Amino acid sequence: MRDEERLNDQLRHVKVETEYIKHPEGSVLISFGDTKVICSASVEDRVPPFMRGQGKGWITAEYAMLPRATEQRTIRESSKGKVAGRTMEIQRLIGRALRSVVDLDQLGERTVWIDCDVIQADGGTRTASITGAFIAVGLAFETLMNNEKLQVNPLKGFLAAISVGVDTEGQIMLDLDYNEDSQADVDMNVVMTDNGDIVEIQGTGEEATFTRKQLNTMLDYAEIGVHKLVQIQKESLGSFAETVGQVQNMHAGAGLDSSEGGRS
Amino acid sequence: MRDEERLNDQLRHVKVETEYIKHPEGSVLISFGDTKVICSASVEDRVPPFMRGQGKGWITAEYAMLPRATEQRTIRESSKGKVAGRTMEIQRLIGRALRSVVDLDQLGERTVWIDCDVIQADGGTRTASITGAFIAVGLAFETLMNNEKLQVNPLKGFLAAISVGVDTEGQIMLDLDYNEDSQADVDMNVVMTDNGDIVEIQGTGEEATFTRKQLNTMLDYAEIGVHKLVQIQKESLGSFAETVGQVQNMHAGAGLDSSEGGRS
Amino acid sequence: MRDEERLNDQLRHVKVETEYIKHPEGSVLISFGDTKVICSASVEDRVPPFMRGQGKGWITAEYAMLPRATEQRTIRESSKGKVAGRTMEIQRLIGRALRSVVDLDQLGERTVWIDCDVIQADGGTRTASITGAFIAVGLAFETLMNNEKLQVNPLKGFLAAISVGVDTEGQIMLDLDYNEDSQADVDMNVVMTDNGDIVEIQGTGEEATFTRKQLNTMLDYAEIGVHKLVQIQKESLGSFAETVGQVQNMHAGAGLDSSEGGRS
Amino acid sequence: MRDEERLNDQLRHVKVETEYIKHPEGSVLISFGDTKVICSASVEDRVPPFMRGQGKGWITAEYAMLPRATEQRTIRESSKGKVAGRTMEIQRLIGRALRSVVDLDQLGERTVWIDCDVIQADGGTRTASITGAFIAVGLAFETLMNNEKLQVNPLKGFLAAISVGVDTEGQIMLDLDYNEDSQADVDMNVVMTDNGDIVEIQGTGEEATFTRKQLNTMLDYAEIGVHKLVQIQKESLGSFAETVGQVQNMHAGAGLDSSEGGRS
Amino acid sequence: MRDEERLNDQLRHVKVETEYIKHPEGSVLISFGDTKVICSASVEDRVPPFMRGQGKGWITAEYAMLPRATEQRTIRESSKGKVAGRTMEIQRLIGRALRSVVDLDQLGERTVWIDCDVIQADGGTRTASITGAFIAVGLAFETLMNNEKLQVNPLKGFLAAISVGVDTEGQIMLDLDYNEDSQADVDMNVVMTDNGDIVEIQGTGEEATFTRKQLNTMLDYAEIGVHKLVQIQKESLGSFAETVGQVQNMHAGAGLDSSEGGRS
Amino acid sequence: MRDEERLNDQLRHVKVETEYIKHPEGSVLISFGDTKVICSASVEDRVPPFMRGQGKGWITAEYAMLPRATEQRTIRESSKGKVAGRTMEIQRLIGRALRSVVDLDQLGERTVWIDCDVIQADGGTRTASITGAFIAVGLAFETLMNNEKLQVNPLKGFLAAISVGVDTEGQIMLDLDYNEDSQADVDMNVVMTDNGDIVEIQGTGEEATFTRKQLNTMLDYAEIGVHKLVQIQKESLGSFAETVGQVQNMHAGAGLDSSEGGRS
Repeated sequence: MRDEERLNDQLRHVKVETEYIKHPEGSVLISFGDTKVICSASVEDRVPPFMRGQGKGWITAEYAMLPRATEQRTIRESSKGKVAGRTMEIQRLIGRALRSVVDLDQLGERTVWIDCDVIQADGGTRTASITGAFIAVGLAFETLMNNEKLQVNPLKGFLAAISVGVDTEGQIMLDLDYNEDSQADVDMNVVMTDNGDIVEIQGTGEEATFTRKQLNTMLDYAEIGVHKLVQIQKESLGSFAETVGQVQNMHAGAGLDSSEGGRS
Repeated sequence: MRDEERLNDQLRHVKVETEYIKHPEGSVLISFGDTKVICSASVEDRVPPFMRGQGKGWITAEYAMLPRATEQRTIRESSKGKVAGRTMEIQRLIGRALRSVVDLDQLGERTVWIDCDVIQADGGTRTASITGAFIAVGLAFETLMNNEKLQVNPLKGFLAAISVGVDTEGQIMLDLDYNEDSQADVDMNVVMTDNGDIVEIQGTGEEATFTRKQLNTMLDYAEIGVHKLVQIQKESLGSFAETVGQVQNMHAGAGLDSSEGGRS
Repeated sequence: MRDEERLNDQLRHVKVETEYIKHPEGSVLISFGDTKVICSASVEDRVPPFMRGQGKGWITAEYAMLPRATEQRTIRESSKGKVAGRTMEIQRLIGRALRSVVDLDQLGERTVWIDCDVIQADGGTRTASITGAFIAVGLAFETLMNNEKLQVNPLKGFLAAISVGVDTEGQIMLDLDYNEDSQADVDMNVVMTDNGDIVEIQGTGEEATFTRKQLNTMLDYAEIGVHKLVQIQKESLGSFAETVGQVQNMHAGAGLDSSEGGRS
Repeated sequence: MRDEERLNDQLRHVKVETEYIKHPEGSVLISFGDTKVICSASVEDRVPPFMRGQGKGWITAEYAMLPRATEQRTIRESSKGKVAGRTMEIQRLIGRALRSVVDLDQLGERTVWIDCDVIQADGGTRTASITGAFIAVGLAFETLMNNEKLQVNPLKGFLAAISVGVDTEGQIMLDLDYNEDSQADVDMNVVMTDNGDIVEIQGTGEEATFTRKQLNTMLDYAEIGVHKLVQIQKESLGSFAETVGQVQNMHAGAGLDSSEGGRS
Repeated sequence: MRDEERLNDQLRHVKVETEYIKHPEGSVLISFGDTKVICSASVEDRVPPFMRGQGKGWITAEYAMLPRATEQRTIRESSKGKVAGRTMEIQRLIGRALRSVVDLDQLGERTVWIDCDVIQADGGTRTASITGAFIAVGLAFETLMNNEKLQVNPLKGFLAAISVGVDTEGQIMLDLDYNEDSQADVDMNVVMTDNGDIVEIQGTGEEATFTRKQLNTMLDYAEIGVHKLVQIQKESLGSFAETVGQVQNMHAGAGLDSSEGGRS
Repeated sequence: MRDEERLNDQLRHVKVETEYIKHPEGSVLISFGDTKVICSASVEDRVPPFMRGQGKGWITAEYAMLPRATEQRTIRESSKGKVAGRTMEIQRLIGRALRSVVDLDQLGERTVWIDCDVIQADGGTRTASITGAFIAVGLAFETLMNNEKLQVNPLKGFLAAISVGVDTEGQIMLDLDYNEDSQADVDMNVVMTDNGDIVEIQGTGEEATFTRKQLNTMLDYAEIGVHKLVQIQKESLGSFAETVGQVQNMHAGAGLDSSEGGRS
């Protein structure tokens, strides 16, 4: 039995506190059980050199953990003088995920810096980061619209991330905590839109493999989790949530991108 | 007039939330107005190489700011690959301050890692860090005593830190916020014990000087501030506060260190 | 139509030259079309500190590209003084993949260093690296067995990697070259065993999404590709190929690990 | 008794050799007893990016020790690949001190690079550096005036630095050598103008505290020391010393800055 | 007796494979016995900042070894985060050698990047690199002439490099392999033009010395080796070899540089 | 005509000040004209890991320039965070040169750290460094013998270094100053023993070549220079100079190394 009598396809308790810090255009403290991440979205009125002059925006992400977010204190990457491979993988993932759901043309020549700082870690820090970053970006866009810097919300749809895994008994579980994760045979992170389309899938068996049947059940669980997380995102964004996706409809109405078929 | 009708010798609103994160032996979220710092104290059962075999403990500190703790986003030191001079100065200061108030012999061959992570910055981050770190260290010692790893609280007395400054009109002010600090002619940080003895004084006039008379008034203000901060520290530590200083009395009773005169 | 009249589910021409360099215990030059990678496996008679004293081995990988492997010259990571995030992701992936298929207990307290150096890049460098590294590791184990350092081949089964993608028309394609890859909406890398079990799946839509139906077709294609690659691996290893998997059978015969169910 | 029958409020023998190296605009070899520092001031006809376009100058400092300036050879910071916290603290201090005494508007868009390289260390390297750097800067300004690049000497007044400390007996001492410093309870560095105004005060009790009364006596001693050092600076600068402070009188005559009260 | 009955003044078997990788403007795989180096020459249409606006070109070189080019695996310089002194010496040497034989004015404001990547090392990697780099640069210039980016071949003459040494018996030997090199008392590398003029000579006795007479014999041997290497270079460049040196004749015909006497 | 009516085969004025700094076992300030270098030799009672347990000593060297040793201020390598290629080449050269002349067996398991810090540069800094380092090492050995840590002087003979060059007119010159060096076609550094044997020769034509005849004349000049430098070294070492070479005679007397022929 899982902690707190959680079912295999059940999320931990998820909590979102918006506008958690005052300086960024958007920020939240998100918790998935005991995992707590401060996500902020900062808007800068220019883009990196490789994007200049295209009239498009850019989204980039950084991820870090406080040294004592973990059970054993971890050494600061600033002290070591380099960023670990794991950190780089996660921040590249967060950036890709958010870029897939923002209309960068509508954003204009601006960079959104996402910062995900884990203040307490108990498994699932990258999925909490992506899910919280989505809200922070939404709040930042709301700020820009309130300041009349944007006319349309560039968010094309909702997106959240969740982990799924297979334990050594072959049981499939949603939203693994640290304890479950460290004993699992297979660990998979899924980033999905609210209609079940996949943005990113990363499944790994360290010293183990998994069948395509197991993969399908894991994706079923992920859909359940993402659906719940999107509901929470909608509550956090309040009435601004209604403007998500309008930029897509505009395009559809204007007949743009109609050839794109399976793309969101 | 200062913000929120604050008097020149008045602190901002100070708030302490203890056991803010679950993994460290001691942790707090401390705020001085809008400045918010997570301070944690982690205990490791060994000392750095230069201290080995002396039967004494060691205390070291690290300090960092979330990128968006500040009004303009600052680049992560891990991304730049090196720690800024300002950061090093502050973490050396925090370490020295806490070492001055802990009986390292009583601590035994253990290292206390202090982590001060600023999640929101509005002036006075180093003084909030020291003041909060004192409480985190106290809570960590309480944990060690509860686990019977320590018999006596190694804290020799209370200690807090506060900033004082002189504005361009020559007015002296306690606990400057960011706005006041960036316009001040003189900026001074004082680390003091609860009986007004000085542990550290760092006063600087960037493109300005100050007289010894001004210095004295600044120290009067600092005493007022430190006195209030120590009261808050006592409340945060609850009944454990009463054990602070007992290690000194033990020594006094045993006639130890009686020659030390002016030392705390 | 694809280059050289290739079908959507067809690999590029794959070539393997074994014992390509003389010093390593095992080495190959592998090419997937114009992508050429030197893969070597070096055996060291000790393990990293975190593995010591467990009687088990370790496998780790490094990946790099010659500066002019690419169409535009890329700056050497040694000159920049740091390893890029992309490089770290790939070398972590190669290491995990090979560890999943080696019985680390049988390997004993040894480290296998895998080096994958791309001398010419045309898409699919990570999948060519994993596929070639498998052969190099096999050759290294053959060397160890010939030197009587190993009694049993620690390879538990065959494993290869291949890329699949979706182009902007929604067409699914196997083994993308650089040109195809840079225009694809979805890019997925799959590491599989010869019986179709998944070791790693990494699928990404940069500014796009994909459906679960598309995912399934991509996996069908990947199975086709991996099956062919394993045949080529078997030819490269010659009669030593027959010893792959014997370590598993030994365990099965001895009734070991019989409780592992869904694991390969 | 102190070495060489030195009184508690007495400086060590101070010696200044001007124009010690030929390339810089100004340079000295300064010794405080066995502490020897080469100070040079180099003028560059541009300012760092954050100062551009303001018509003002900038002063920055670097400090280093030869590896064998110390009793035990210290590792070069270039070999370690990073600058130590102590070094950064000192070079920031030297820069701030000199900026406080130079009229940056009169300097124009130029940077003065101060280099303080300790060739032999016996305590007080930072105070010798500041005191020597003042002369080097003076000599550099003389060069600029001789070359008609400056019309007015931008030095607003004299400034020197000295250390004071409290030993374990509670005795207060001026200008500590390495031996005295390593046994002292309290170590304080004071940067002062010739009329006793404070530019910077940094007092530290490592594992000890000090009273406000002790602080006052230390400052009395510092005034004595700084007074003597300024006399030596005047001798080193010769007739050019007379132009120091003229830039202030110009302003006073013109009624500028009259509102600044306590500023020098 | 040397391996494979080689005479003291005899080269190892030298092999050149041109256009070894497809992206660079020029590339070769060169082998001196078991030493194998991929040399490529890449042309960029701009020069480094310190060369801008002079209408001249620049040539720079980088050198590296695959980790398992050597008998013991060497750690990647990218992993260590810095380039070793030995590597820097070699890449500076390659760059200087090639610059000495190219008319940088004829090259125009272009940079030629030479990359020498040792895939298998058995002594003489730097001399093989220079000799191979000459061919790669020649092939790159042929490409530029074919593309009508250059009207004249900027190569002023042929140039090759070879090692000579003295063994512990006082015997002099040409083109040392790793085994010979590691036992030699004296190791010398000579870069020469085809008419026996010296471009670079680096002779070293580690814990030994050598006489001027020995130096002369070593240079006689070097001339023999360089002569043979230039023949091989000519064969590799085919008919393009005939254009080498024409740029010199043009100058001579025009009476330019006639005062330069001893220069090549 | 050269500066100060110097002849082509004449050294600049050479001056040596011994025991220039107090902490190292041996130190000098050496000047070749306006080039001034502080050379120190520090003895540590252990050897680097790769030398342990062999009963032999090690000699290693570091070289640096003060930022304003040069006409244009150069950036500190500690600020850049890495050591330049030129610096590494020079420190490797100094180390090799000194190791060639010290009997490392007699030295015992000790490391001699040579530090050459250029305080003023005017050409020939590496040759002044080697020549001065020889004296510093001699003084250090004298200290060790006085302290009865060594019974025999490990110096096997005298050794000095000098530069020679060819100017654009084909004239050969000894001991080039910065001005001469920056205009020369060929620059060569020679490290020689007092009997004219060569330890190291490094000759370079940047965009030029030189003939073997020119090489021979350059070596004639170098012999003249080294002969004079050794005389100055003998004067600096006083009566201790007589013990140089005794370690060789001891061996000869004992019939050791008699087979070594051409080695010094």
